[in-house]
Amino acid sequence: MKEVRIGQLGLGRIGRLHATNLCQSIPGAKLVAVADPYLNDDGIAFLKSLGVERWGKDEEEIFAAKDIDAVLICSPTGTHPDFIRRAAAAGKHIFCEKPVGLDIPDIESALDAVKKAGVKLQLGFVRRFDHNHKKVRDVVASGRLGAPHVVKVCSRDPEQPPEAYVAVSGGIFVDMMIHDFDMARYLSGSEVTEVVAYGTNKIDPFFAKYDDVDTAIVMLKFENGAIGVIDNSRAARYGYDQRVEVHCDKGCVQDGNDLIDMSMISTADGVVCEKPTWFFLERYNNAFIAEVKDFINAVANDAPVPVDGHDGLMAVKIAIAAKESLKENRPVKVV
Amino acid sequence: MKEVRIGQLGLGRIGRLHATNLCQSIPGAKLVAVADPYLNDDGIAFLKSLGVERWGKDEEEIFAAKDIDAVLICSPTGTHPDFIRRAAAAGKHIFCEKPVGLDIPDIESALDAVKKAGVKLQLGFVRRFDHNHKKVRDVVASGRLGAPHVVKVCSRDPEQPPEAYVAVSGGIFVDMMIHDFDMARYLSGSEVTEVVAYGTNKIDPFFAKYDDVDTAIVMLKFENGAIGVIDNSRAARYGYDQRVEVHCDKGCVQDGNDLIDMSMISTADGVVCEKPTWFFLERYNNAFIAEVKDFINAVANDAPVPVDGHDGLMAVKIAIAAKESLKENRPVKVV
Amino acid sequence: MKEVRIGQLGLGRIGRLHATNLCQSIPGAKLVAVADPYLNDDGIAFLKSLGVERWGKDEEEIFAAKDIDAVLICSPTGTHPDFIRRAAAAGKHIFCEKPVGLDIPDIESALDAVKKAGVKLQLGFVRRFDHNHKKVRDVVASGRLGAPHVVKVCSRDPEQPPEAYVAVSGGIFVDMMIHDFDMARYLSGSEVTEVVAYGTNKIDPFFAKYDDVDTAIVMLKFENGAIGVIDNSRAARYGYDQRVEVHCDKGCVQDGNDLIDMSMISTADGVVCEKPTWFFLERYNNAFIAEVKDFINAVANDAPVPVDGHDGLMAVKIAIAAKESLKENRPVKVV
Amino acid sequence: MKEVRIGQLGLGRIGRLHATNLCQSIPGAKLVAVADPYLNDDGIAFLKSLGVERWGKDEEEIFAAKDIDAVLICSPTGTHPDFIRRAAAAGKHIFCEKPVGLDIPDIESALDAVKKAGVKLQLGFVRRFDHNHKKVRDVVASGRLGAPHVVKVCSRDPEQPPEAYVAVSGGIFVDMMIHDFDMARYLSGSEVTEVVAYGTNKIDPFFAKYDDVDTAIVMLKFENGAIGVIDNSRAARYGYDQRVEVHCDKGCVQDGNDLIDMSMISTADGVVCEKPTWFFLERYNNAFIAEVKDFINAVANDAPVPVDGHDGLMAVKIAIAAKESLKENRPVKVV
Repeated sequence: MKEVRIGQLGLGRIGRLHATNLCQSIPGAKLVAVADPYLNDDGIAFLKSLGVERWGKDEEEIFAAKDIDAVLICSPTGTHPDFIRRAAAAGKHIFCEKPVGLDIPDIESALDAVKKAGVKLQLGFVRRFDHNHKKVRDVVASGRLGAPHVVKVCSRDPEQPPEAYVAVSGGIFVDMMIHDFDMARYLSGSEVTEVVAYGTNKIDPFFAKYDDVDTAIVMLKFENGAIGVIDNSRAARYGYDQRVEVHCDKGCVQDGNDLIDMSMISTADGVVCEKPTWFFLERYNNAFIAEVKDFINAVANDAPVPVDGHDGLMAVKIAIAAKESLKENRPVKVV
Repeated sequence: MKEVRIGQLGLGRIGRLHATNLCQSIPGAKLVAVADPYLNDDGIAFLKSLGVERWGKDEEEIFAAKDIDAVLICSPTGTHPDFIRRAAAAGKHIFCEKPVGLDIPDIESALDAVKKAGVKLQLGFVRRFDHNHKKVRDVVASGRLGAPHVVKVCSRDPEQPPEAYVAVSGGIFVDMMIHDFDMARYLSGSEVTEVVAYGTNKIDPFFAKYDDVDTAIVMLKFENGAIGVIDNSRAARYGYDQRVEVHCDKGCVQDGNDLIDMSMISTADGVVCEKPTWFFLERYNNAFIAEVKDFINAVANDAPVPVDGHDGLMAVKIAIAAKESLKENRPVKVV
Repeated sequence: MKEVRIGQLGLGRIGRLHATNLCQSIPGAKLVAVADPYLNDDGIAFLKSLGVERWGKDEEEIFAAKDIDAVLICSPTGTHPDFIRRAAAAGKHIFCEKPVGLDIPDIESALDAVKKAGVKLQLGFVRRFDHNHKKVRDVVASGRLGAPHVVKVCSRDPEQPPEAYVAVSGGIFVDMMIHDFDMARYLSGSEVTEVVAYGTNKIDPFFAKYDDVDTAIVMLKFENGAIGVIDNSRAARYGYDQRVEVHCDKGCVQDGNDLIDMSMISTADGVVCEKPTWFFLERYNNAFIAEVKDFINAVANDAPVPVDGHDGLMAVKIAIAAKESLKENRPVKVV
Repeated sequence: MKEVRIGQLGLGRIGRLHATNLCQSIPGAKLVAVADPYLNDDGIAFLKSLGVERWGKDEEEIFAAKDIDAVLICSPTGTHPDFIRRAAAAGKHIFCEKPVGLDIPDIESALDAVKKAGVKLQLGFVRRFDHNHKKVRDVVASGRLGAPHVVKVCSRDPEQPPEAYVAVSGGIFVDMMIHDFDMARYLSGSEVTEVVAYGTNKIDPFFAKYDDVDTAIVMLKFENGAIGVIDNSRAARYGYDQRVEVHCDKGCVQDGNDLIDMSMISTADGVVCEKPTWFFLERYNNAFIAEVKDFINAVANDAPVPVDGHDGLMAVKIAIAAKESLKENRPVKVV
């Protein structure tokens, strides 16, 4: 198998995660160069420690490089559609972090560019690669439980993000629940046609300043007649709570959280087990590796990508509908 | 403690359950007489086997009896408000099965009669007496987890009722989810102010004939700012699935199902545990006894009843709002 | 089905339990008379409250009564063989609490008397009627997992008994582990041929005064080639811990404890579940009813008893061998 | 921190595992050279793929190399004591796979050599580094549950090894249960003073040919008055079953298996969860990395090793005593 040569855009938290995985855990991939307009000495030292040999502040060097087969887009959301268009124009395959964008026409234009260029585009919906959620989806997709009736996703972060983050996050639906919208499509195997959202501000008063909520529930209708519900909280003090459930004709399949360990301590005060693993780096660590392995395989062997541009687009559409629903207190179609 | 002498109205399935419990499991109560317009030889034999000595077809004999302190109303829902008014007029304390009625003004008039007569009225929301749900509520009510943010109730019957039942049931919200509406109020310690309902028909086509659904999800807003969600299914082939969860400031409390047994069989095919207990008679058996014990205690010792007429009224109001929400596909206030 | 008329010998803790069950939970049985040499006003009031009409201090009245079909022996262990012989001589069927006796020839003579009289004798190994243990045994007995290799029983009381009790209990093997020896035979479907015991005194120093231990482990060899192990503790501060496990050709079947409730509380401090139910009255409540129902059925319908005199004898033989093993620190054959 | 330069002896299954970890997952270590008398083209290709630059068939090149700080001994057990002596003589620190040897005087002479040379020796009891077992031990060691009373270890392989392996393995106690003997010492924090063993041949007849058993239970006495039990099976068809439990003054701490995933599928046939992870590579993967990280740290920072030569010696002594106990059917002191 030919080595896939990667250029990466962005070296923030998620960028460092992908860079580390590319260099240490993903055979067949080589991280050739990294561009980030905010690259500093610390970032350079980090890249050197990984053995990466080229870096800079200008993304154009990545798009222009003849020896780069594919790009990983880990830059801020606002840049995604533009970077996708430029990468496609340069004939490079693309792995792009979620969300694919914030504006539907902008996203659609980027997807058009990908289509015309004939390059591959994979979206970073990492949870599809989690062993637990994937098992639930595989059971549903196998048909052994019959048709899905109800899809449930519970997703809670262990602690609220800083106020500065919330100020620019785009709100809980676009920033956080977007993963769960994708999960709902993934589990049900069907498109979402309508949503209705309830939200409340219980965790930190600053959410209200940005017209945002910290706690939300969204109901969904699916094309196949199933219905669903997602609940999100910005703060579960016991850790990252990530559970899904699909109730079907013949039964129900659900998952639980990975735990810190499988211990059980029994005393007069009760029986104490461990908490879920702390946050996404702990819970989805292997999934981050698996999604990029799949991307590398798709590029190297001209195989289909497991999560594509349409998946990216639909999740954003649902998020925008949910936001509108919460604002107007009415069900909103996903069109 | 003075013995509480009971007259019972209705000897259907739930009536027989209460009669049996009164005679075998509830010290301090005596089932003196039973009236049911459809009473037949089989019913009489059943009562004899319990040692009950008086029976008949005319409820008036119960209301008129001087030696009866309290009535148990186990007759069809349509009769509840009228029987409550007549029992109150006769000065008898009242235990009434859910729902308290189907028409709000009718219910309100019955509650007025109770108030004027100064008798006690307890509603049969049996799930409040289940050891699992009660524990969840007690943890929330203790305040140790802080304020509730999200209240979740999952309630699935093991198999759909017969078509004839569905034809007259009043629909999933009034007949089935009414228990969960009460549970939501019980767990949150707050009134429901608005609901929005999604429903679908996935289990049996006949539900559609009666303008009913067999699968439903309802979101709720509470007065205290919490939000909630209930999901119902008429058929979970693995048994009666009854789970609740309350996510709060400092953590989450939830319960699981009682299981048929605690066995675990590990083979190459997987690890198999037992299913939930089959249906409400199995799961809520002890709760049916506990609720009537509490009623008997309230009567004998002039203590407050644990579930009152207001609880009965509010659950019906929420159910009616949910029905309207499903029909009109919009959030509906509970007023 | 003809009513089975019962005379009961002994009205201590276990005697009251059986009397209550006979009067309230076991159709087809009638508790006609009770004899206990220590019967006092409190005991008489208790019997009156159950509706029992005959009582006295002399067991001979029970044996002599023409209207009594069967006896329940709930008196101290020392009396068991004699009472069995006398009941058999009177042609009465016998339910006898464990252990059947303490002296092998004495037990054998009692069993001979039963055989000659052609009456039924059932031993009170109540744990065989527990839903969890029974399920494990049924899976093993079905043969679906192949031959058993290893049988494990863990049995811990929630707190040590009073010193006065230990002084006369006969020691941990005869008093406590005897249940587990029976369980080992029940689960394996095979006779125990040899045991070796380790014990230690960790809970309360007074055990040593009576040449007893409070913590013990015993390994067992079975006729069918399986091996096993039982561990006992007189004090598990988290409740009555009762777990069994059988590892077989094709897999393993085990059980867990019934819990006080199925709640789960997740906070920053961990995830807390409930403890096992407190002690044998809570855990084996239904099993106590089931075993006597089976006895009543065996008498009424001339069916075999589910636990017989041989079972009673073998458990005592194993216990005596374990005691000798601990004393002499060597494996001891069960003969 | 100075880089620790490693020479490795042996490139079999466990050797390749350690080589991979050294090159990919253990910062601060560099695998400089590998020696294995059976090294072939495949092994060389493997080393090249890891970036290892020196290899050969003669271990003496490792001992003689001036640029090597420490050795990893992954060669057959029979070579361990000799290699330890030679490494110590060369002033190199030593990580040695279990068991440290098979003959007590030979082991003792090797430990003497280590002591005289003043080098570090760490034994490969990898299970001490498993997150689950470590948590159990940490709870016991913290003293929060009071003194340990009973230590239980259940350890079952998913399938029996090939006959050729059993022929030279040294038997179940030295080859397999040695891990559990170390675990018993680790959990209890106390020395084992006596053991008694039962064994049986239920899985494959060939074990008997080599005077071996495939199923064994061993009871243990500890210096601190606790008692314990280990059960081993060579074949659990549901996967690698690794559970430990310590019952103490104030309660019990135990662990469960890591599972393949946390899914739960509920149907009319039961509730199916996943099996334990398949075997030691899956279960103890992170533990293999953690133990060598600790060794590297001990060497680089002159810190104590977490598992030392005494631990290696004691586990072998217990295993030899267990073997003798099984043969002679009597308890055997560990001296």
